Amino acid sequence: MSIRGVLVPVVTPFKADLSPDRDRFIRHCQWLVSQDCGLAVFGTTSEANSLSAKERKNLLDALVVAGIDPSRMMPGTGCCSIIETVDLTAHAIQHGCGGVLMLPPLYYKKVSEDGLYRYFSEVVQRVGDTRLKIYLYHIPPVAIVGITPKLVERLLKAYPSAIAGMKDSSGDWNNTKPFLDAFAKDAFDVFVGSESFLLANMRNGGAGTISATANVNPRAIHELYEKCSGVCVKRRRNQKALGTSASTPADLEALQARLNVVREVFSNKKFPSMIAALKQAIAIYTNDQEWTRVRPPLIELTTEQAKLLATELRAIGFRWQQ
Amino acid sequence: MSIRGVLVPVVTPFKADLSPDRDRFIRHCQWLVSQDCGLAVFGTTSEANSLSAKERKNLLDALVVAGIDPSRMMPGTGCCSIIETVDLTAHAIQHGCGGVLMLPPLYYKKVSEDGLYRYFSEVVQRVGDTRLKIYLYHIPPVAIVGITPKLVERLLKAYPSAIAGMKDSSGDWNNTKPFLDAFAKDAFDVFVGSESFLLANMRNGGAGTISATANVNPRAIHELYEKCSGVCVKRRRNQKALGTSASTPADLEALQARLNVVREVFSNKKFPSMIAALKQAIAIYTNDQEWTRVRPPLIELTTEQAKLLATELRAIGFRWQQ
Repeated sequence: MSIRGVLVPVVTPFKADLSPDRDRFIRHCQWLVSQDCGLAVFGTTSEANSLSAKERKNLLDALVVAGIDPSRMMPGTGCCSIIETVDLTAHAIQHGCGGVLMLPPLYYKKVSEDGLYRYFSEVVQRVGDTRLKIYLYHIPPVAIVGITPKLVERLLKAYPSAIAGMKDSSGDWNNTKPFLDAFAKDAFDVFVGSESFLLANMRNGGAGTISATANVNPRAIHELYEKCSGVCVKRRRNQKALGTSASTPADLEALQARLNVVREVFSNKKFPSMIAALKQAIAIYTNDQEWTRVRPPLIELTTEQAKLLATELRAIGFRWQQ
Repeated sequence: MSIRGVLVPVVTPFKADLSPDRDRFIRHCQWLVSQDCGLAVFGTTSEANSLSAKERKNLLDALVVAGIDPSRMMPGTGCCSIIETVDLTAHAIQHGCGGVLMLPPLYYKKVSEDGLYRYFSEVVQRVGDTRLKIYLYHIPPVAIVGITPKLVERLLKAYPSAIAGMKDSSGDWNNTKPFLDAFAKDAFDVFVGSESFLLANMRNGGAGTISATANVNPRAIHELYEKCSGVCVKRRRNQKALGTSASTPADLEALQARLNVVREVFSNKKFPSMIAALKQAIAIYTNDQEWTRVRPPLIELTTEQAKLLATELRAIGFRWQQ
């Protein structure tokens, strides 16, 4: 029953006055769900930390009202303040969200493992809901404060039901692997923060990926997930009569390589951020310039950068799936 | 009319349930004001980022109700979200606070100067109050995102009234000096984030210090400020008839050296944080253990560390001023 597969840290569209554009947000989420993706709304790529707590809650309410299944949602709820983290987490759990993605408190640096343990303990106890599923969010290039195996071990021991997994956005497979080795057997679900590690993750007992580029390339990423996941193996067995053949390792590696080529385009250091580049791509392919806006301190792509992005996507034969 | 002198990033006391202890907070603020210090409530030392926005507003309301002069307050109001920064800033300005101390949005790293300029511009325009006085908060060891001279230059040009100064907590005099050289002449008030740079700051046109240790050593820090500030020079001239003699450079350096000795005790790397050590010292000298609590992810001093602190303060002859 736990969330697995490809989750999208959904980009948040803004109106001219920089308020969240609820309608475009809902439409984008509906499209992502139609591509078999879950919704990790309010992540780093969502500019969640540039939103107020109230804006996050209003947007989540709007998704639920729009009829999107909350069990496929994993909203980001980690703030620096226990009070605000508990508030957002309780709100998400009350909506029936499949889980929450929780940043560590990131203001103070070089905090102790003990301090982080106490922080997450307080959150679990204050939320006090057996439905709570926390996915710890490790993103050291941004949060600086990180999640260590030792911390996971202590938390899992104390709260085996509430501590459901993690997202590793270290960008370092040597960081991800020890978590899989130590905790995957305990139903601790490890998501990689980039689809470039998806195949490796699935081969080592991982649960999927929560990746920024799934905002524009959801179907292809999900295809790799499906082809290499156990779920898919089981389904294929049932479909033997239909003549579906299992993918070979080489097939999977070819799919992985194609995903990497797309991601590479968005990772171009010439762009002010991957977030702005993703929004620009959505604007290009939906022919809707409203999508380009970001909230300060982020900035949009220049006209020249937008042209470069369009050119490079054409050059790699990128196709927008409807 | 602008705030100058010694401002205290007031530590926030917590009750057993970790809620802010309003009464102790008010009493501590009243004592600091009686020592001629201003109140930079909700700073890094205040664990402000571990508080919710609502808790900050309630505490500020309580100080005003308690009769403390808001013109001597400079609350921290900088959040990652423009919406929340504007909300807290407007609240402080409506109370008549002398200024606000504003962190840059610190979630995204390596953001452009353009993005930060847009962020602060949005805040100034949205607050839309001629009383607004922003002090930019540069604390790179914690926020990572910092304030550059070029950014100050652009903001000062666009908003000469609203951009009132800065706090430099880089801990690097070579970073502070260029700000003084470039902007002190334009009534841009530079506060150093440690009293260890107070004398140097005042000799170079600075406005004072906003320092954590002023929570426990306010009178001595203020004495150095007063003796080396222009205000003091003027006063001394008027008081010639009273026989008051001006301090010599050697007198000032001796005062500075004594302040440094006290600060050194609290900077001991054996303590989990200077914040916890300051709270422990208040607990010792007010004989009130309630003061020791910190919110996770910070942790309190161990019994052994608390003893070490007490011993070291005695060893340097530290005296708590009433």
